Amino acid sequence: MDLQVFLREKKQLIDEALDRYLPKETDPPETLSRAMRYTLFAGGKRIRPILTLTTYEICGGTDVDAVMPLACSIELIHTFSLIHDDLPAMDDDDYRRGKPASHKVFGEGMAILAGDALFAYAFDLAVRAPLPAPVILDALKEILWASGREGMIGGQVEDLLAEGTPPTPEKVLRIHRRKTAALIRASLVVGGIAAQADAETLGVLKEAGLALGIAFQIVDDILDEVGEEEALGKKSHKDRARGKCTYPRVFGLERARKDAFDYRDRAKTLLSQRFSDRAKPLLSLADFIVERIY
Amino acid sequence: MDLQVFLREKKQLIDEALDRYLPKETDPPETLSRAMRYTLFAGGKRIRPILTLTTYEICGGTDVDAVMPLACSIELIHTFSLIHDDLPAMDDDDYRRGKPASHKVFGEGMAILAGDALFAYAFDLAVRAPLPAPVILDALKEILWASGREGMIGGQVEDLLAEGTPPTPEKVLRIHRRKTAALIRASLVVGGIAAQADAETLGVLKEAGLALGIAFQIVDDILDEVGEEEALGKKSHKDRARGKCTYPRVFGLERARKDAFDYRDRAKTLLSQRFSDRAKPLLSLADFIVERIY
Repeated sequence: MDLQVFLREKKQLIDEALDRYLPKETDPPETLSRAMRYTLFAGGKRIRPILTLTTYEICGGTDVDAVMPLACSIELIHTFSLIHDDLPAMDDDDYRRGKPASHKVFGEGMAILAGDALFAYAFDLAVRAPLPAPVILDALKEILWASGREGMIGGQVEDLLAEGTPPTPEKVLRIHRRKTAALIRASLVVGGIAAQADAETLGVLKEAGLALGIAFQIVDDILDEVGEEEALGKKSHKDRARGKCTYPRVFGLERARKDAFDYRDRAKTLLSQRFSDRAKPLLSLADFIVERIY
Repeated sequence: MDLQVFLREKKQLIDEALDRYLPKETDPPETLSRAMRYTLFAGGKRIRPILTLTTYEICGGTDVDAVMPLACSIELIHTFSLIHDDLPAMDDDDYRRGKPASHKVFGEGMAILAGDALFAYAFDLAVRAPLPAPVILDALKEILWASGREGMIGGQVEDLLAEGTPPTPEKVLRIHRRKTAALIRASLVVGGIAAQADAETLGVLKEAGLALGIAFQIVDDILDEVGEEEALGKKSHKDRARGKCTYPRVFGLERARKDAFDYRDRAKTLLSQRFSDRAKPLLSLADFIVERIY
């Protein structure tokens, strides 16, 4: 399998679906439609929906159109979180994916509302997925767990509260688990739910997804620390400057690198044990996620 | 029926349920749990969930515990919108329900996240309602329609964009329909969906709910105009000062009063035709909503 081709093809499918699902720029209120699309189409590797589609296929799912609304729902939730996190009252980032952040283009009020609208639209997409109602509800439960207090939003709260306080191992792991790993877990699990995988398989996806998600965030922290402004499309050293609770600050860069690989390996082992050879595309994605370090 | 007793009893049921459903103040992240509860329990008449419970009963529903999560879901969405609308980047209100607004107590970043978390929690509640999965999905579709671009969030966008521009009849009706009437409509319709009412009944609830919702917002505009700071628990004349597109500004106070009653009467007629005598509690609620003018 050529990973670059695989990623490009999946990303194209997802981008086309997002374009089809989202309101047109001319749909009223126009400013809102434009703001919703602006950050969504400002770039982004679509890692989360790619994980969902890939897991769905590995679990035996064959109808991409059925899982696509759920995969895109997760991308919308991720985008909503980027818009709100960049606000001056939060992480105060002027750039995102190499372009001016939403609030720099549309103003703060509209950026808050664009985030809110993307969050609502994520569920709008999910409830309309052509899948049995109980399957949709199970997927929604996972997505909501990953988005809410126990997931992404709760993680952003802890991240904000931790600024300027002494970083500790417990704190950084709690933040990473909630803020990033929960939604990565959901990206895998929702693929499994859509394919109607059994409870044991879903259990493996949960554990592997969390491990992969923690690896993902450690790598993000490392990239911020060592600085790759161009690669990130946002200012690096930003986390350090704000006194954020990051993995390298707690454990040092060397240990951070080692742990990122360890978490990735944990995820790969779990997936291999469960899916044998079928796991390969997910294993390649796991490598791709971590090897951004180089 | 003694309306005051009816309102008090229903409100108590709802407040108890909200208290049971919401995370405890000590649930982590504690600051978020406290911020979520702060605005939710800062007052509020619980009009929307009372409309849901009442409509549910009128449509023949008998299991209050089944509909309660949906009713409370709507109240959480309403509260989420209050927190975000009060932010400095939006309507910039320092007081809400007679107490300092969320961002004055918890800071802007936390207020944004508390709103986000309440929005997510609203769906968390809804997906767990003890009702058949297709019924829950139908209720979610209505709630999402009322919350998103075509409803509340879209209305707040139009409200923001209209500030300082010439108010027109089309503009004010479009804003009121989206910003307020959509969620009032959902309050009725979700009660009907939970009771598994037929399509014709749901159609009546949609139309009556929209009319009642428009009456509701006209009354709010009138109260802001004539000033009842104490009654509102927030600064009156605020809308006028910000150059908001309000009903009295477009049509004058006298016409606004007349139209509020006309919309209410339209709602009452529709409900009476459909439900005959059973409609009575809803008719009393419609009167209560509009007679705040006195």
